[in-house]
Amino acid sequence: MVERILYLIKERKYVEVRRILGNINPMDIATLFSEFSDNSLPILFRILPKNIATDVFVNMSVQQQETLIKSFSDFELKIVFEDLYLDDAVDIIEEMPANVVKRILLNSSPQVRNQINSILQYPKDSAGSIMTIEYVSFRKNITVSEAFEHIKKTGIDKETIYTCYVTDSFKVLIGLVSAKTLLLSDRTATVESIMETNVIYANTLDDKEEVARIFDKYDFLALPVVDKEKRLVGIVTVDDAIDVILEENEEDISKMAAITPNETPYLESSVFSIWKARIPWLLLLMVSATVTGMIISGYETALAKAVILTTFIPMLMGTGGNSGSQASVTVIRELSLGDLRFSDIFKVLWKEFRVASLCGMTLSLVEFLKLILVDNLMLGNSAVTLSVSLAVSLTIFFTVLLAKLVGSSLPIFAQKIGFDPAVMASPFITTVVDALSLVIFFAVATSVLNI
Amino acid sequence: MVERILYLIKERKYVEVRRILGNINPMDIATLFSEFSDNSLPILFRILPKNIATDVFVNMSVQQQETLIKSFSDFELKIVFEDLYLDDAVDIIEEMPANVVKRILLNSSPQVRNQINSILQYPKDSAGSIMTIEYVSFRKNITVSEAFEHIKKTGIDKETIYTCYVTDSFKVLIGLVSAKTLLLSDRTATVESIMETNVIYANTLDDKEEVARIFDKYDFLALPVVDKEKRLVGIVTVDDAIDVILEENEEDISKMAAITPNETPYLESSVFSIWKARIPWLLLLMVSATVTGMIISGYETALAKAVILTTFIPMLMGTGGNSGSQASVTVIRELSLGDLRFSDIFKVLWKEFRVASLCGMTLSLVEFLKLILVDNLMLGNSAVTLSVSLAVSLTIFFTVLLAKLVGSSLPIFAQKIGFDPAVMASPFITTVVDALSLVIFFAVATSVLNI
Repeated sequence: MVERILYLIKERKYVEVRRILGNINPMDIATLFSEFSDNSLPILFRILPKNIATDVFVNMSVQQQETLIKSFSDFELKIVFEDLYLDDAVDIIEEMPANVVKRILLNSSPQVRNQINSILQYPKDSAGSIMTIEYVSFRKNITVSEAFEHIKKTGIDKETIYTCYVTDSFKVLIGLVSAKTLLLSDRTATVESIMETNVIYANTLDDKEEVARIFDKYDFLALPVVDKEKRLVGIVTVDDAIDVILEENEEDISKMAAITPNETPYLESSVFSIWKARIPWLLLLMVSATVTGMIISGYETALAKAVILTTFIPMLMGTGGNSGSQASVTVIRELSLGDLRFSDIFKVLWKEFRVASLCGMTLSLVEFLKLILVDNLMLGNSAVTLSVSLAVSLTIFFTVLLAKLVGSSLPIFAQKIGFDPAVMASPFITTVVDALSLVIFFAVATSVLNI
Repeated sequence: MVERILYLIKERKYVEVRRILGNINPMDIATLFSEFSDNSLPILFRILPKNIATDVFVNMSVQQQETLIKSFSDFELKIVFEDLYLDDAVDIIEEMPANVVKRILLNSSPQVRNQINSILQYPKDSAGSIMTIEYVSFRKNITVSEAFEHIKKTGIDKETIYTCYVTDSFKVLIGLVSAKTLLLSDRTATVESIMETNVIYANTLDDKEEVARIFDKYDFLALPVVDKEKRLVGIVTVDDAIDVILEENEEDISKMAAITPNETPYLESSVFSIWKARIPWLLLLMVSATVTGMIISGYETALAKAVILTTFIPMLMGTGGNSGSQASVTVIRELSLGDLRFSDIFKVLWKEFRVASLCGMTLSLVEFLKLILVDNLMLGNSAVTLSVSLAVSLTIFFTVLLAKLVGSSLPIFAQKIGFDPAVMASPFITTVVDALSLVIFFAVATSVLNI
């Protein structure tokens, strides 16, 4: 396909190219364009049917958008940006270098420039920063028929016409009516008689994650955003909510793996930027692990007397780490979905205590039997005595117990003091539990083995 | 609120309760109902305004739904299930015990029963299993005006009227037209003249995750589902796509933490079911860790000569594990988002090789300086010789290198042979890397220290 189009462009068969592109979904054209060089991009974009050019532009990579903007005449730039939905325009502007932003704003109408600036001023993760101001609104005293007239006249530029908002003369949100209700109602009915007045809305400063959660809970297609005086200032549409959900998930998973979140796709990220996202955590965790070395040093004489103990250290730390991660990840997810509060901490600890007791008993029993039956009897390893097996099994039980209690409570405390609980996931918990399991192991072993 | 309602019910002031509930969003009523006992639930449900009762029912917990169904008369059961959208009815049926399912199907009309059975037969994670059959469709030769008449007549029972599908006389999908296009078009135009023919659709057997990805990519509100003959059989709506996205994320995160995914919320899960979801992985990983013990056993004599080496084992394994997790989680996410294919494996390995070299150099340099400057000079630990420091630093470098290569490639291989790459996350990678780092450590240490 790419080669065919390049050939057609070389032959100046632009009409044929336009015909081909006209049959492809704009998102797929954007994907297709990503395989073209920066040189052919401006020609290709100019060939695009006018009605889909903006849709294609929105879905291109930031880098290709920048290339195109630089190739645009002032007039073309104006056309594309006037045609964008405001929230998309703001998204693009946020990714562009300062000189490009300046040129975009210079070539926007004063009205659009003001609107862009007003959205740019909302905090990064707020409802205001992801909303669009292209919505349908009208007064309550018009009829269904008049509402349709209004939609027909203004709807073409609105991001959605399926939820229409009703405001009073101060722009205060007083109700909403869906296009479905409008369509199924008598055309002479007033909007007031059919509107829903029990409207769920977000405030401009609400966290965008909360906004996404509202979409999940209520199955909305759009959510109105109001200012402090409950005046309607914009709407968030469901596609933006999906983007927020995916982005937050990416972030949570990155943090759980001790990586600084990064929006650039992996294959497009530079080696240096990946290094920068990973190295601080690796350094921090490596230095924290010094404490485990110190614990082992403290028991060097005991270890020298029973070298066999050393062979169990990795397994004990691994089991503790895995047990702790399970609890911490579970709790982190519940916190991030809003299903768990600080006041639930005792419920969580009690539940984890019981789960950990069960897990600990199972694991230590299996390990005890393995040590006695396989290592000692079958393989004839005489160093694995009954006392050693007992010390190891007891350590497993207490380590799992502590690991799960620590793993489940640390994220809750982290959130309480305003940290992101996701950083309390596997790597961090593992480092804490490593130290704990060593302390338990040496305490148990020295007393069971009398060394 | 709960107490107020209980008081009003006791006083038999049902009209007042209905008035209060009528002002609350159905989803919030469902949340409110979760705080009532099973005894008061049937009364409360019967008090609900009829037009929102089904919406409330859909959003209640499985357990409360079961309680209600058992309290329903056959007639009530019929009313509620006829009023449900088919995909919701199927979701509820899938969660109910066999005797309840039997009663539901007995009390459904033969038509609904057939429809439910036809959806139940689709594989668990397929597009067919999450679709609904309540969509608007018409022929291409009708006018916009006739299309509106059709929507008015049939729209009330459809899950969405905002995307209407155009089919031929064999029910084959040939186009779609949005309500927005219909509203903005001339009322005498034919549907054929305004419909989009370049329709993106799913097949009944497509994976529901792919369906969700289509929603994210194209910002659709609904996606048509067709059978092998391209006949339209249902649609998936955006709210179902959001549910799939959230559910898949939950599953991925659970698997990454070595937990068997479980749909029941944590606080509602029994201790036994949590144990069941966690113990198999803990056992598997504990037994796998036996190999690390065997590696240490193999070097017991070397360790006895330089006990100081033991103190570095936890730090080395931790650093290796964290490095590997970072790479594996990154790759798993890219695979799960469909942004990475098997053919990218060399690109990934080359990128990780460079990132790992950078990370490895940074970490080993920092550790080397720390050992020499802090441990040896400042703290006067004479066991930390130059050769020991060198051995530890070199091990860090090679461990990080191998950990990142293994961490990034194992998930890709797992997917290639049909496994879920998410199980190749932290716990599994850590176990593999633990063994690797020990082998490297002892190989490097014995040759550097000549022991």
